[in-house]
Amino acid sequence: MIRAGIVGGTGYTGVELLRILALHPDVQVSAVTSRADAGQRVDKIYPSLRGYCDALFSLPETANLLDCDVVFFATPNGTAMTMAGELLDQGIKVIDLSADFRIKEIADWETWYGMTHASPQLVAEAVYGLPELNREAIRQARLIACPGCYPTAVQLGFLPLIEAGLIDSQNLIADVKSGVSGAGRKAELSSLMSEAGESFKAYGVAGHRHLPEIRQGLGLVAGHPVGLTFVPHLTPMIRGIHATLYASLQQDADLQNLFEQRYQDEFFVDVLPAGSHADTRNVRGSNRCQIAIHRPQGGNTVVILSVIDNLVKGASGQAVQAMNLMFGLAERQGLETVALYP
Amino acid sequence: MIRAGIVGGTGYTGVELLRILALHPDVQVSAVTSRADAGQRVDKIYPSLRGYCDALFSLPETANLLDCDVVFFATPNGTAMTMAGELLDQGIKVIDLSADFRIKEIADWETWYGMTHASPQLVAEAVYGLPELNREAIRQARLIACPGCYPTAVQLGFLPLIEAGLIDSQNLIADVKSGVSGAGRKAELSSLMSEAGESFKAYGVAGHRHLPEIRQGLGLVAGHPVGLTFVPHLTPMIRGIHATLYASLQQDADLQNLFEQRYQDEFFVDVLPAGSHADTRNVRGSNRCQIAIHRPQGGNTVVILSVIDNLVKGASGQAVQAMNLMFGLAERQGLETVALYP
Amino acid sequence: MIRAGIVGGTGYTGVELLRILALHPDVQVSAVTSRADAGQRVDKIYPSLRGYCDALFSLPETANLLDCDVVFFATPNGTAMTMAGELLDQGIKVIDLSADFRIKEIADWETWYGMTHASPQLVAEAVYGLPELNREAIRQARLIACPGCYPTAVQLGFLPLIEAGLIDSQNLIADVKSGVSGAGRKAELSSLMSEAGESFKAYGVAGHRHLPEIRQGLGLVAGHPVGLTFVPHLTPMIRGIHATLYASLQQDADLQNLFEQRYQDEFFVDVLPAGSHADTRNVRGSNRCQIAIHRPQGGNTVVILSVIDNLVKGASGQAVQAMNLMFGLAERQGLETVALYP
Amino acid sequence: MIRAGIVGGTGYTGVELLRILALHPDVQVSAVTSRADAGQRVDKIYPSLRGYCDALFSLPETANLLDCDVVFFATPNGTAMTMAGELLDQGIKVIDLSADFRIKEIADWETWYGMTHASPQLVAEAVYGLPELNREAIRQARLIACPGCYPTAVQLGFLPLIEAGLIDSQNLIADVKSGVSGAGRKAELSSLMSEAGESFKAYGVAGHRHLPEIRQGLGLVAGHPVGLTFVPHLTPMIRGIHATLYASLQQDADLQNLFEQRYQDEFFVDVLPAGSHADTRNVRGSNRCQIAIHRPQGGNTVVILSVIDNLVKGASGQAVQAMNLMFGLAERQGLETVALYP
Repeated sequence: MIRAGIVGGTGYTGVELLRILALHPDVQVSAVTSRADAGQRVDKIYPSLRGYCDALFSLPETANLLDCDVVFFATPNGTAMTMAGELLDQGIKVIDLSADFRIKEIADWETWYGMTHASPQLVAEAVYGLPELNREAIRQARLIACPGCYPTAVQLGFLPLIEAGLIDSQNLIADVKSGVSGAGRKAELSSLMSEAGESFKAYGVAGHRHLPEIRQGLGLVAGHPVGLTFVPHLTPMIRGIHATLYASLQQDADLQNLFEQRYQDEFFVDVLPAGSHADTRNVRGSNRCQIAIHRPQGGNTVVILSVIDNLVKGASGQAVQAMNLMFGLAERQGLETVALYP
Repeated sequence: MIRAGIVGGTGYTGVELLRILALHPDVQVSAVTSRADAGQRVDKIYPSLRGYCDALFSLPETANLLDCDVVFFATPNGTAMTMAGELLDQGIKVIDLSADFRIKEIADWETWYGMTHASPQLVAEAVYGLPELNREAIRQARLIACPGCYPTAVQLGFLPLIEAGLIDSQNLIADVKSGVSGAGRKAELSSLMSEAGESFKAYGVAGHRHLPEIRQGLGLVAGHPVGLTFVPHLTPMIRGIHATLYASLQQDADLQNLFEQRYQDEFFVDVLPAGSHADTRNVRGSNRCQIAIHRPQGGNTVVILSVIDNLVKGASGQAVQAMNLMFGLAERQGLETVALYP
Repeated sequence: MIRAGIVGGTGYTGVELLRILALHPDVQVSAVTSRADAGQRVDKIYPSLRGYCDALFSLPETANLLDCDVVFFATPNGTAMTMAGELLDQGIKVIDLSADFRIKEIADWETWYGMTHASPQLVAEAVYGLPELNREAIRQARLIACPGCYPTAVQLGFLPLIEAGLIDSQNLIADVKSGVSGAGRKAELSSLMSEAGESFKAYGVAGHRHLPEIRQGLGLVAGHPVGLTFVPHLTPMIRGIHATLYASLQQDADLQNLFEQRYQDEFFVDVLPAGSHADTRNVRGSNRCQIAIHRPQGGNTVVILSVIDNLVKGASGQAVQAMNLMFGLAERQGLETVALYP
Repeated sequence: MIRAGIVGGTGYTGVELLRILALHPDVQVSAVTSRADAGQRVDKIYPSLRGYCDALFSLPETANLLDCDVVFFATPNGTAMTMAGELLDQGIKVIDLSADFRIKEIADWETWYGMTHASPQLVAEAVYGLPELNREAIRQARLIACPGCYPTAVQLGFLPLIEAGLIDSQNLIADVKSGVSGAGRKAELSSLMSEAGESFKAYGVAGHRHLPEIRQGLGLVAGHPVGLTFVPHLTPMIRGIHATLYASLQQDADLQNLFEQRYQDEFFVDVLPAGSHADTRNVRGSNRCQIAIHRPQGGNTVVILSVIDNLVKGASGQAVQAMNLMFGLAERQGLETVALYP
């Protein structure tokens, strides 16, 4: 049994890790930390876990994590970078769901995240945990930077087109809509049901932290910087991301076939039949990305629809997928679920 | 492998059976019928099942079900009663999620359901599929009448009190709230999001079909007819039932202890700690009933809060629980899931 | 023009007052206070008011309110009681939407609200602002204690029965469901859309602050203390309260006629035709209470369904109704709106 | 008093007309038709109108409309074109909320709408009822083709840019999100709360009927055909449209100022301060369009956010705005409302 620790167990990605790992046949959760709730039973805070989790929250201190084989950071940005080094030194693998190790260019990271990076030396080592792109590197990694939720949906949608060099990569548009759980389990006015319910808005149009992450990822694939307009929106539902991606085709191609070939061996990326529309409900609670490809009126604008559950493939599920790879398990272990519909 | 058939695979209880059985290690779905969609792939209608279900919908005819070991009816009322006999004659077990076999008194059933019963002789044989009440009979049964969603939540909440003879069983009140999936996958104005969303209402106050079912169930336990006022409500969410139950205590007792003892061996009934409130989100997608017991201001009115997912413990999960019992499997097989929170 | 001040303009009852008064032909909002947002334009915080409100938020100090004819307190409990006296001394009428002046028994209030009352002498003078019960007193009042949202829906539903002495007033049950705006515009985890959305729960079953208020109101009408079990619930919508009320009839009566007679001159209380169900959407945004009367299966349990918009008839609309009475205006002035459906 | 008739009073645009006209000081609703509900009281179907509407539904026959000064068609496509001519011949003005008279090119209309047009001669006469573009023509018109909901939000957002010739009009992108009331009050599976709730999807990516309408409108302004990719989405809320518009700037300009100047005299188009995001809740129930202008990272992609209530500015409110113009009333008459927030 792999012994797993979760730092930051009271946020949505933390409790989602607990949900997934509770039924993972090869993993035992041996530590869950929460500064605020230390000493309390986890299932008191999360009654959905009653019967599946006997743990108590402990303080987020390294000493409480030393008997783990792997530690997940489900923390706000800025925490993992202060603790990861010490854990790695003890031979413990680290999977960070926050943004601390995602951006290779330290100065960029510091600008977007407004902090000085505490472990710049680890950034170089960290492997960006998108298995569909980096599977072999993940297998070998000690330290994983899990992709953000928006970046997962957007990159999986653009990847085949950029790899094939079919589109104008200087004028990409990603119009992306997220459920409110993406804002985390934080007491903020803007996340109240009375504020976010029954309403729809864009936010962060001037610049969102996932923009440099997506640009970096797509740029690495393209082999040169890409131009991207990224507009995130808040949609009145709890789980789910829907990315609507626009690009100009520079040459003709069978796009449906291109995507099907690219993802034919990827269990967690499902290319829908031609003519389909992707619907977030069909991936709710599952680790799957579903993608539909359109070319309206046969013009040269390609429209890609890419949906994920932001808390699963956009966070905790993808983290467990990476863990499976790092420990030589079947990649699907513990992630075989059917979306909760309706 | 148990070969299972599902008649009426395009309703919400049908697709929920498909979701659960897709991952059940001992079951193979060998037939799924739908008159409207016969010939189509199941996962075309339900993309959430892509990768987990290769079946085509077939016509709802006995011939298509003859190689099944068990057939689930996830049909509107009035269908199972016309087909069950023939299947039973072939040695096939039948689990009916509709109301056809729930009411023992045929005349009562015919009054409430507005039809002549096609198989009255089978009604006597049918076992009411509430495992927490009828476990041994279910193990031996050929034909199961699965409880309705409201009756499951209400009966599990009242049972310990009635068994112990603690309350005035002539003046029970069940104020119950259901999510809209309880209305089924039917194109009806009242179930439109524009009608049912952001609004709350009672319905069927004059009389709802689940009233005689609850009365029958509680009366059997009490040993005499009970008096019940049952008011169902529609609440603007998709899944979940919350029953708020009121009764007058006739003698003092440690109610918390009573419930904990009654359900101590029941994995699917979880008595929450004293002082808790039950929340439907904590059972969403799971087969569990969570119950909280209150006695406001120490008075003699007891208030029981009982929550289930109407499509799981209130329908398809409970049906699979019964199936497990009928085939000698572990009762929890295929039903080990953690509720989807948030 | 009546010059109105609003203390606590950034909560939901405050902004609802602004919405109503913006179109009230006889009122001019001359001061809106907010400690947090002092100096900012009101319509910067609430863009829905653009074009209808040029005011800036000011500090909640008496000096900023001295040129008002009436001041509304849309504040948390404990504020109005410290400021009302000074305003009254200046000849300014006060309408308090908080609970400071609702409970006549000071000790009771202090127990339920956990504070020492700052102006016990004003409590005796304050008029409970339910116009359908206290119209003449409201006309003469200097100080109004606006009823709570739950108490409004519950009292209007029980009043005709208690006035007529038809029910057992020792065993009343009020099972009441509220939208999430009832929790106010406060950054609290439990009000997040990810927590409160798609879920249903009871809360405060052991005792809610509106219990003594309802008991006091009904007791005054009954002429003796009443026995009430009050269970509030949170339902996943923004606006609306649905009260389901249960009582035992002690003598026969034409209940439909009783209610119609009682409310025949009340524009804001609408008794629905026999057999109807009340739906919160039909009063969304309006100052109306709609009531339906049932007697299931002709038994002696009467079931009353009473719906309001918690922010209008349950708070700000009712406050304006009281203001109209206090200033000799038509009671409906500024409150003529049709509910927003769908 | 203007005597108004409403054909098709049981759809959402019909009942929204009733809501608005009930409080319009210069209008009396003299006929409301509904084939299905003829003979019934309107407020029986719509209890929100109790006290504001004494009408009965009548059959949708010309004879029932002859004493009207104006008739609104809130009908499915294909009805107004068969009845408008006869009404116009009687001197009755006609305002069509359906699509029958929107597309000038008859062949185009017949292709997109799949019918033969019954009154092609009236198409030429019909005035496209977008007051911010066609105010003077509307004043003189006998027959108004009200814009679709998507076209209203999209055109108001693009207009200033196209009029000023600032953008590449061959590569416009409109990513638009609508609440579910846009699908109308029709019993369809896809509009059930269980289907549309808690989920997000695009639809009609291959081609939506509002595409030729938007193209026609923008093309007339541009003076040449425009190239537009239009992707509609369904978002899980009842009311509201959010258009996110993308275009490439061809020359520099002060866009904020451009929009403010263009709409400075338009009460119903509100240009938000620089840096704002538009939120559909802030126009819910109101006839206003709110617009925000962005140029992310100072690049040459302009992003316009444009929100309306699809049933008000996107349908019935805009129809009343046109009526006010046609009858020489103040344009805001009956449309002065503050959005319902929260």
